[in-house]
Parts: sequence; C-alpha cells; structure tokens
Amino acid sequence: MIDPPSLEKMIAEFSSLPGIGRKTARRLAYHLLTRSRGRIKPFCESLKEADEKIKTCSVCHAFTEEDPCPLCASREHAKTLCIVEKSSDILPFENAGIHRGLYHVLGGTLSPLDGVGPEELHIPGLIERIRKLNLQEVILALGSSPEAESTALLIDRLLQDLPVKRTRLARGIPMGSDLEFIDEITMLRAFEGRISL
Amino acid sequence: MIDPPSLEKMIAEFSSLPGIGRKTARRLAYHLLTRSRGRIKPFCESLKEADEKIKTCSVCHAFTEEDPCPLCASREHAKTLCIVEKSSDILPFENAGIHRGLYHVLGGTLSPLDGVGPEELHIPGLIERIRKLNLQEVILALGSSPEAESTALLIDRLLQDLPVKRTRLARGIPMGSDLEFIDEITMLRAFEGRISL
Repeated sequence: MIDPPSLEKMIAEFSSLPGIGRKTARRLAYHLLTRSRGRIKPFCESLKEADEKIKTCSVCHAFTEEDPCPLCASREHAKTLCIVEKSSDILPFENAGIHRGLYHVLGGTLSPLDGVGPEELHIPGLIERIRKLNLQEVILALGSSPEAESTALLIDRLLQDLPVKRTRLARGIPMGSDLEFIDEITMLRAFEGRISL
Repeated sequence: MIDPPSLEKMIAEFSSLPGIGRKTARRLAYHLLTRSRGRIKPFCESLKEADEKIKTCSVCHAFTEEDPCPLCASREHAKTLCIVEKSSDILPFENAGIHRGLYHVLGGTLSPLDGVGPEELHIPGLIERIRKLNLQEVILALGSSPEAESTALLIDRLLQDLPVKRTRLARGIPMGSDLEFIDEITMLRAFEGRISL
C-alpha cells in the first residue's frame, strides 16, 4: 500500500531471485530509483542481451555465444575431459589453471523423481563423444550429493569398457558445498588427490 | 574469459548493486539463464515500468506514481508531520501504524563537502509547508549520523519561531538486543534518556 504499485512489482521481481529476501529486494529497488536511475536501462539491456546471445554449446553444453564454444574449439586435441554438473562449475577449474582439457556439462544430476534420467543429462551423447575422442583421462567432477554420486557411478559403469582412465575429484571438497563456490586451493588439493577408479 | 562476454556484462551489472558481491552476482546471472529464462523479460519490464512511472511527490518528495502522492492527498488535514531522510523510511512508520500524519522526505542529510545544502534538501520548502499547514507537532525522524544530527539541528532552529511542537525519535536500546552488545554511544543515549518508573 505504501510503496507505489510499479515499485512494489519491481521489489517482487528482485525477491524472486535466490538469496534475495524482501528487505534486500526493497533496498535494491530503492537504490536503483534513488541513486542509479541511469543504470536501470543498461542493466536491463545487459540482461536482455545475455538472454538473446547465450545458448549452450552443442558439443559440451556449456553456456556460450558461439557454437562450438571457445573451449571446445580451441582444445579439440586435448587428452582429458572433465565432466561437471553445470556450466558455472567450469570457472573454478579455469581459475585454478589445473585443467587445460575439455569439459562436458551434464546440466544436473540424475533425479528419477523429477524425470531427470540419463537422456536429460546427455549421458548417451557424452559416452558417444568420449568414444570418438582420443582421450587419456576422463575426470568426474560432480558434487558430493547422493544424486551426484549415483550419476558418477552410472557414468563410470558406462565408461568401463572404454580404453580411458577414469578418475574423480579427491575428497578435499567439504560435504554439502557447491563446486561453484570452492576456493582455488581446495580445488587444487582435490584435483591433485584424484584417485583411479 | 570463461564466461561469454554478454554473461560477463550481466554479472558486472549485478555486481554494481549494493551488497551484491561478484560471486553472488554470478550466481544470480546463472540462475536467471539456467532456471528462469522466462523471468528475464518480466524482470526487465518491471524495472522499466518503475523507472518510467515513479517520480517524487511535489509536496512531500516521497516516491509516488501520482502527484500529489496518496498519503499527501488523503491526509491533508493531519495535525502531525514526520520528517525523514529517504522515501524508504516511511514504510516502518506505516507498518507500525503509529503515525497517521504527513511526511516530508529530505532526500539526504546536509553534507557541505558534497554540495548538499538546505536548498538541495528542500528545507526552505519544508519550512514554508509547515508554516501553511495547521500542525500540532513536527517529528524529526532522521538517523543518528553526525550529518543527520546537524540536519536535525538546523531544521529545529528554523522552526523555533513557529507555533508548533518539535519532537525527535527517542534514542535507546532496541527491542530484543542484548545489553552486552550495545555500543557505548547508544548506552549513553539510553542512560541520559532514562525515564522515571
């Protein structure tokens, strides 16, 4: 009632973002309207531009503007491939500089109750991709949730007849945390401590 | 380098908001692109709509879509007026249901070094407004920073010849807080302002 309707709507939109409560949403909306009116248009344009330009790489399924993505295009002769859950999980590897190979983004983990099976995660395509590439090693870099564990288990089984070394990240990763937010040292330890399956 | 340019730009825009660090900005951008693509347009539209519709009331300077704002329009015969720093400070009063009078938004506090003087805060207009209204009480509800204190002092002086009661919000211990963690200035104010039982 006190905030005008259009401001109320703007606050509701901010509140719908993860980790943004109502008070924070209100603070952001008032900030934009008070101090950053000039930022509203560029802000919206950046969102729209990303919405239009960002697609997923048809090879590795990472977010990209070009298809294939720059990583797939520049590392086609790489000998290692790292399997991650989501596109945003690639950054910590690249930041730590520990993997100069290929990636494959599953887009989630197996979750039969939500209708997420191997097909939804492009797992058959992944196996096909690995079969065609001349790889030395496939690194399973999934999280530590039960769903991620069973996804890794399935991929490991599907790969066991192929002449490629399978590894997974060492248990340096603390339970329940998101790969996306792991600091570089922890990521390095986990990568160095990877073990044969 | 890893995030595509348009995604990078979107992250930078989110990072420019107050209290949003780079990691949070990245999480928000990835969230919108992964799970809420359909929310991007309505989100932007709500921002643009607010940007177009929200102006400040020519009477009290609060954010509004109509001029005068609904509060000014519906309470023109009120006997009390509450002076606040920013438009967003009105909500806690209205939520608590403790003030059914008028408001006046200064839009900041005096800050000579930043070129914010009485004119920028519409203080002459405020005095004129109070002179014309038939008020019983003016409540100074500014913050407790040195700038807010000196702003309140100036307004108090300018009003002293008018036949209206001047009050300010009490300073003291907030509800639910532990005395152990109260800062010294708050403790001093609370002690000085102690009341007989």
